[in-house]
Amino acid sequence: MTGRREPATDTVDRRLNGNLPLLDAGAAAARIDADATVLTSGFGSVGYPKLIPLALADSDRDLSLTVVSSGNVGDEIDVALVESGAIDRRFTYQSSAVARAATNRRDIAFSDRNASSIGDEVQYGGLVEPDIAVVEAVAVGEDWFVPSTSVGQVPAFVEAADELLVEVNHRQPLKLQALHDIYRPEAPPNRGPIPLTDPGERIGTSRMHFDPEKLVGVVETDRVDSTYSFREPADDDLAIAANLGDFLAEEMERTAAFEDAVHLQFGVGSLGNALMGELEGLEFGDRDVVYYGELIQDGLLDMLDADRLACASATSMALTDEGQERLFASVERYARDVVLRPADVSNHPGLIDRFGVIGVNSAIEVDIYGNVNSTHVGGKRMINGVGGSADFNRNALVTICALPSTHDDGEISRVVPMTFHVDHTEHDIDVFVTEQGVADVRGLSPVERAELIVEECAHPSFRPRLRDYLDDVRSQDDHIPHDVARAADWPE
Amino acid sequence: MTGRREPATDTVDRRLNGNLPLLDAGAAAARIDADATVLTSGFGSVGYPKLIPLALADSDRDLSLTVVSSGNVGDEIDVALVESGAIDRRFTYQSSAVARAATNRRDIAFSDRNASSIGDEVQYGGLVEPDIAVVEAVAVGEDWFVPSTSVGQVPAFVEAADELLVEVNHRQPLKLQALHDIYRPEAPPNRGPIPLTDPGERIGTSRMHFDPEKLVGVVETDRVDSTYSFREPADDDLAIAANLGDFLAEEMERTAAFEDAVHLQFGVGSLGNALMGELEGLEFGDRDVVYYGELIQDGLLDMLDADRLACASATSMALTDEGQERLFASVERYARDVVLRPADVSNHPGLIDRFGVIGVNSAIEVDIYGNVNSTHVGGKRMINGVGGSADFNRNALVTICALPSTHDDGEISRVVPMTFHVDHTEHDIDVFVTEQGVADVRGLSPVERAELIVEECAHPSFRPRLRDYLDDVRSQDDHIPHDVARAADWPE
Repeated sequence: MTGRREPATDTVDRRLNGNLPLLDAGAAAARIDADATVLTSGFGSVGYPKLIPLALADSDRDLSLTVVSSGNVGDEIDVALVESGAIDRRFTYQSSAVARAATNRRDIAFSDRNASSIGDEVQYGGLVEPDIAVVEAVAVGEDWFVPSTSVGQVPAFVEAADELLVEVNHRQPLKLQALHDIYRPEAPPNRGPIPLTDPGERIGTSRMHFDPEKLVGVVETDRVDSTYSFREPADDDLAIAANLGDFLAEEMERTAAFEDAVHLQFGVGSLGNALMGELEGLEFGDRDVVYYGELIQDGLLDMLDADRLACASATSMALTDEGQERLFASVERYARDVVLRPADVSNHPGLIDRFGVIGVNSAIEVDIYGNVNSTHVGGKRMINGVGGSADFNRNALVTICALPSTHDDGEISRVVPMTFHVDHTEHDIDVFVTEQGVADVRGLSPVERAELIVEECAHPSFRPRLRDYLDDVRSQDDHIPHDVARAADWPE
Repeated sequence: MTGRREPATDTVDRRLNGNLPLLDAGAAAARIDADATVLTSGFGSVGYPKLIPLALADSDRDLSLTVVSSGNVGDEIDVALVESGAIDRRFTYQSSAVARAATNRRDIAFSDRNASSIGDEVQYGGLVEPDIAVVEAVAVGEDWFVPSTSVGQVPAFVEAADELLVEVNHRQPLKLQALHDIYRPEAPPNRGPIPLTDPGERIGTSRMHFDPEKLVGVVETDRVDSTYSFREPADDDLAIAANLGDFLAEEMERTAAFEDAVHLQFGVGSLGNALMGELEGLEFGDRDVVYYGELIQDGLLDMLDADRLACASATSMALTDEGQERLFASVERYARDVVLRPADVSNHPGLIDRFGVIGVNSAIEVDIYGNVNSTHVGGKRMINGVGGSADFNRNALVTICALPSTHDDGEISRVVPMTFHVDHTEHDIDVFVTEQGVADVRGLSPVERAELIVEECAHPSFRPRLRDYLDDVRSQDDHIPHDVARAADWPE
């Protein structure tokens, strides 16, 4: 029933032959029109092009670029290129302080799309008119390349763009090819099924093929990714992990769907990383523990090292510098269990559904009725894109929102009467987990949800005020009673 | 490449043999525990059980039922049974005035889930502990039945429930079996792909099979569905249809994905029905026009009669009385082109994505930034469930929200500064269409979207006030500037 599990064995080297159009970064950057729509590789702050964006930032041309990445990219794009004023329009995920500030000043027009679908939207859906794809690779030939530490929507981007620039990064190990499984879904509107019947199966190739007519230039680099850094797990993180662990233990008992295997996904960030790291302490019995997610963060490496994961599927090895060292030292070992896929496979709504994933994602804040804001502080100020959180929150079999009950040293409650930006609706989330407890809101009405979220998940220092709000609005003869003006003044 | 298109030819009759446990409705109702969780058939206000709910409503027992349907059911459940006070808890879609009032009074606990996933949530996801399924059929045997005018999540419900009651409706033609294609996705967490490669393909059977141990009773009836009624298309409906038609014509030119075929879906209601009806006036050239949606409403019958649809896939023939007459008089003819599927196939996120659907759904109101409220007036008062609208709004290749710019004879704008209940987020909708015009917001930032939606879609009588709001908040240094208190006072 299950298909190929072993990594691809076709080997490539990256000695660049004389037929490839080698360019220096400045010459490559000059091939990009001043108002081009540029599609870049990069996801989870790794595997993005570095020298060409820096050369664009250094250019004295007056640039007004549209830059489309499918996930987070590093400082070369979202700091240097943004600071140079070259970016007019930016999709989709971003989270650097500099890009965020430019977006909040509205110097950059930001359209925030879901990670699963931005490839289709670029290629077929009319989101942009793509000009050129700029991608990082560990090796390149006349009609193929091997991606580096992430895949993202690179296959869709390369197909959609008229032209292609490749940065071959000699710092990224050639062996990374063993991780990749490049599979292109067919073109709509009559596609066949994606033939993946097991989260660890391989259905594609380690190489990404392209039309050789598109290749404008190849640039060589050995610049490292500007990776994520995660804080050490804090007390709240560990308490959230413990509450989550209790819930998962009960859930595995409850449903036959998790009798033989449990398929997990964790969202990006320090909390997600900490939760991955705490998996080791959980009892899974004889079950296959599978990671079917978007990002693999450092926290998962221990589980892989201990042979406790049957397999892990993602679109990015979103590791810290230390995590990359561990990966690069033992790529073959990780490739036994890890498959890096395009984001339209890793995050595909139908596959998340197919594999009955338990999805765990965080948020900025949640409201008492179960609406979730994961992108805009106060509903106004963008902190980061929505990324793939909605892909998993919408399509997972059990959807968990895990977050600390407060931020700013307990000064601000993350449980609020009303959230003024909604990324995930009341129809999406099954369970809320904070360091205070677990609110399993499945099957509850909005007011029942509110009671449970306030009592189980809010911080005790905010519970009385949340109870007051709920008690006062409860007198209304409405399904979802609220007082918008008062909610806007919260916590007054 | 494409599979079986012709309807099933296995014939059944509904002479009920002596081995079936025939019961009258009262005796059947008595088999349902007072606090049971009852899963019912019914979608689009057709194909739901009738006599057993009426018998429950007439019972003098003190009932506190949880009633789960996957789509809209008729007055026997959402009027009579609600008025009897027998329902404590109700999922998912509902829209009757009586059930709505009880829900807004919070006499009924309503948890509103997406139509695509409520089957999985009931069977595997811990939403309820299902006791008994009560379904309408046109024929029944010892281990099978044939559904009637809708399928919905009946296959999941019958598998999930411990017991089964079947109402055989002699008024619904036996020939309806030719429409059905009952296919059960495998159980998570390691399911295979749903093997549907063409929207009109048949991959299942006309019969729904069940464990004969579950069958508690069979009740005979000839009671008709309490069907939808649609108003005649109004001027606004026709103007919306014309604007939508212009957009579709441009979109078919723009993208190669629609070169050979265009796959459409329309939401429930009078507007959706009118838009289906206006399809006849559109030029599709040589393209296959395919309906891949949730409901087939009367408006689509003309397209079918004129042989202008290559095929139509849905989970319900949500017709009026007149539409049912047309269907019942020519079931074989419609069965050539129509396939009725379970809702976890018709609305499957992966299949909507696979088939590159252009989805057209309506709403109560939209805000200037592109958030959509389709369920709660003022963010508080429930009007109807979310149904399958989020399934299509999230997963369609091109997502269109079509609505009149005002309601209450132009007194109230449906374009508002901020909507206080969000069913579809700013990440979901590509295009807004009103009788005023079209706002194609793909690739636009929130403030750019606001400008376009106000200028193209808002009613001229509200545009100045919306411009004032936007101009005033624009001074904020925020990605999505707003003034919640003022938005709450809108249109003051």
